[in-house]
Amino acid sequence: MPETTKYVLTEAEMPAHWVNVLPSLKEPMDPPLHPATMKPLTPDDLAPIFPMGLIEQEMSMQPEIDIPGEVIDILKLWRPTPLYRARRLEQALDTPAHIYYKYEGVSPAGSHKPNTAVAQAYYNKKAGIRRLATETGAGQWGSALALATRLFGLECTVYMVKVSYHQKPYRRLMINTWGGEIYPSPSDRTQSGRAILEQDPDSPGSLGIAISEAVEDAATHPDTNYSLGSVLNHVCLHQTVIGLEAKKQMALAGEEPDVVIGCFGGGSNFAGIALPYLLDRFNGSPVRLLAAEPEACPSLTRGRFDYDYGDTAGLTPLLKMYTLGHKFVPPRIHAGGLRYHGAAPLCSHLLRHGWLEAKAFPQLAVFDAALQFAQTEGIIPAPESAHAIRAAVDEALAAREEGRKRVILFNLSGHGHFDMSAYENYLAGKLENFGYQPVDEEG
Amino acid sequence: MPETTKYVLTEAEMPAHWVNVLPSLKEPMDPPLHPATMKPLTPDDLAPIFPMGLIEQEMSMQPEIDIPGEVIDILKLWRPTPLYRARRLEQALDTPAHIYYKYEGVSPAGSHKPNTAVAQAYYNKKAGIRRLATETGAGQWGSALALATRLFGLECTVYMVKVSYHQKPYRRLMINTWGGEIYPSPSDRTQSGRAILEQDPDSPGSLGIAISEAVEDAATHPDTNYSLGSVLNHVCLHQTVIGLEAKKQMALAGEEPDVVIGCFGGGSNFAGIALPYLLDRFNGSPVRLLAAEPEACPSLTRGRFDYDYGDTAGLTPLLKMYTLGHKFVPPRIHAGGLRYHGAAPLCSHLLRHGWLEAKAFPQLAVFDAALQFAQTEGIIPAPESAHAIRAAVDEALAAREEGRKRVILFNLSGHGHFDMSAYENYLAGKLENFGYQPVDEEG
Repeated sequence: MPETTKYVLTEAEMPAHWVNVLPSLKEPMDPPLHPATMKPLTPDDLAPIFPMGLIEQEMSMQPEIDIPGEVIDILKLWRPTPLYRARRLEQALDTPAHIYYKYEGVSPAGSHKPNTAVAQAYYNKKAGIRRLATETGAGQWGSALALATRLFGLECTVYMVKVSYHQKPYRRLMINTWGGEIYPSPSDRTQSGRAILEQDPDSPGSLGIAISEAVEDAATHPDTNYSLGSVLNHVCLHQTVIGLEAKKQMALAGEEPDVVIGCFGGGSNFAGIALPYLLDRFNGSPVRLLAAEPEACPSLTRGRFDYDYGDTAGLTPLLKMYTLGHKFVPPRIHAGGLRYHGAAPLCSHLLRHGWLEAKAFPQLAVFDAALQFAQTEGIIPAPESAHAIRAAVDEALAAREEGRKRVILFNLSGHGHFDMSAYENYLAGKLENFGYQPVDEEG
Repeated sequence: MPETTKYVLTEAEMPAHWVNVLPSLKEPMDPPLHPATMKPLTPDDLAPIFPMGLIEQEMSMQPEIDIPGEVIDILKLWRPTPLYRARRLEQALDTPAHIYYKYEGVSPAGSHKPNTAVAQAYYNKKAGIRRLATETGAGQWGSALALATRLFGLECTVYMVKVSYHQKPYRRLMINTWGGEIYPSPSDRTQSGRAILEQDPDSPGSLGIAISEAVEDAATHPDTNYSLGSVLNHVCLHQTVIGLEAKKQMALAGEEPDVVIGCFGGGSNFAGIALPYLLDRFNGSPVRLLAAEPEACPSLTRGRFDYDYGDTAGLTPLLKMYTLGHKFVPPRIHAGGLRYHGAAPLCSHLLRHGWLEAKAFPQLAVFDAALQFAQTEGIIPAPESAHAIRAAVDEALAAREEGRKRVILFNLSGHGHFDMSAYENYLAGKLENFGYQPVDEEG
């Protein structure tokens, strides 16, 4: 049996700064636009819902941004996270490829999301904010923010998509356990919510609606800000600790990745592992950066690159991104964290200019890979993260076809402890593939 | 806000041997008895269901037993585990006590159970066994053994108490995900199961019945052995990696514990953290060793010290232990892993002779402590482990009363990701305390 091979850093080796790729971009990014004026957004436009510390990061041209000591101090609860070589998976695949994975499921919330939740809670606390409002789908982001706000003594209000609120009680209960308050969305607490409920009292809700509610909550309460778990530049920035650590760990392994892989929903965990390697690519490295998205919600591979809203109601700024249209409602795949119509503008921009690759995977093939991973490496992966596993397995099989070594690094963004019903469906043969059904833009 | 303080060991600092306290005992232990002859058990009596490697460990007089390289190799997946100082909890309690906890929830199965599951799978594999049979209550042990057998290429059959099989589907699904087969017990696969079903087709099952089924399965199939997740000497032995690592980590912290705490069901996680410190106690150290059990199932504090069976049907050897009677059916507390009528003979013996202390805690006070821990330290604990937290908090409050420092070390044996419905009941004010209802021995 192949040996377990784990690369561990000391606390002293934790990154002291986040990597900001904005000043290194080879092509200029299109700015976000104000939804009323259609003019480029200014910092003041964002001030009602974000603290200045985060607004500055959203637009910063500093190549490195120091991680505040108070943030590092909380990240130390679970960081540095381990990096493994998946030798037992390699053996099962009979591949000459070397497969490495960075494991972010060791955080108390079970995913990479607390990396940015802690930073966002910190900057809001520092700005004198008392409460954060946010939305959540399956609950990964909501639970991460509930944890982070609790540790900084802030309050937390989470609008959870109603259908998930009732179908996925356990992440909701984590939010309660950490002292967060949580409402099924659409709720009667906001004008946006009430408007939906008036039209359709039985609305199952959507991430778009929940975003509208959280933004409205923040905009209408001076002591409250809004917090977003993906998509924005500052969120991608906070996740670069993943790739920065991984680079040190790959150095311990004495290898350079040929391809770096992350699953892709809004883009933050992919950005976290990939952006530090992007700088190598800018400097001539041939490393490939591969985003793995679901076939059912293929913003990167089948979306159009255009300005679009971040929410369904069209209240947020317009972002230039790959989008399936802000009215697109993704099918109910189990990877709830990848059910978003858009893609981080930064990642969209990089894909547009050929710095990234993207591939879409069907649900069944993703779970095939998840099961093979669980049975060889021992960790039961989240359905979201299993998209990265599928992509890594395919790369390893391609290496076998070629008969050549390939060094593969992927981010295992979280565990599947709250997704066992998805495994139940898969093991019972009840899981289906969902194709992409474009939204009728005329409708 | 107090700083996160985590003590991490390198892989090279992992224990290379288990600590066996049997040769150091100050008073002789009473031997297990054969249920038919009532004579002391011989190694040959155990050979039909255990491999010789484990039988030797059960009775070994070697003070240290080397951990095989193949076992260390799998343990490395999650070991060494971190030790934390709970500074935020200390602050919340306003106590001069220093509280340390060893966190075993980082294993893929989420508890300390894989420490012995891996060793047991290894020795069985080496003995040419093809399959292991076991019982499980809430599923912690069954999932740990399913993981370990899968990694060694063995098959695994789990008899799961029927009421838990239906009420707690998620740990069952982990067992399936790792390729184990699992049957609700009583089942029609064994004579013991069929006998129960004949009398009561709707029997909810019990751990005692499930043990009978697993033992019978092993005894009637030459290629199959039985595996037990607690109680026995070799299981306690395998868990000593916990305490051995903790001692090195406490040395890094520059402190010696005044009291070492573990929750107590069958006794293995308590033994794991406490036995390495017992040797210090034998050498004159004043360190206290405190077992925390549920009031609803108080074998240590209210049981009698006597020979009793390990299962309800009375098929197993007779063990000299603190027992509530093998017909005792514990109330349905959420800490399913602590619902056992007996206690490890080794721990019972040590308690009898004053080397250990034991305290019983009511369910509500345990969940009060669990919530306070989750909200200060961030990790959501298993209900079992929360008994140790309660005991540690009480020690810290006593130190505050005294106005003196006290160094407290406890084992956080697992996370509560599969126990969120227990938190739901607690948060909804629906959780009740259960008193101890002695079994009618005449009945």
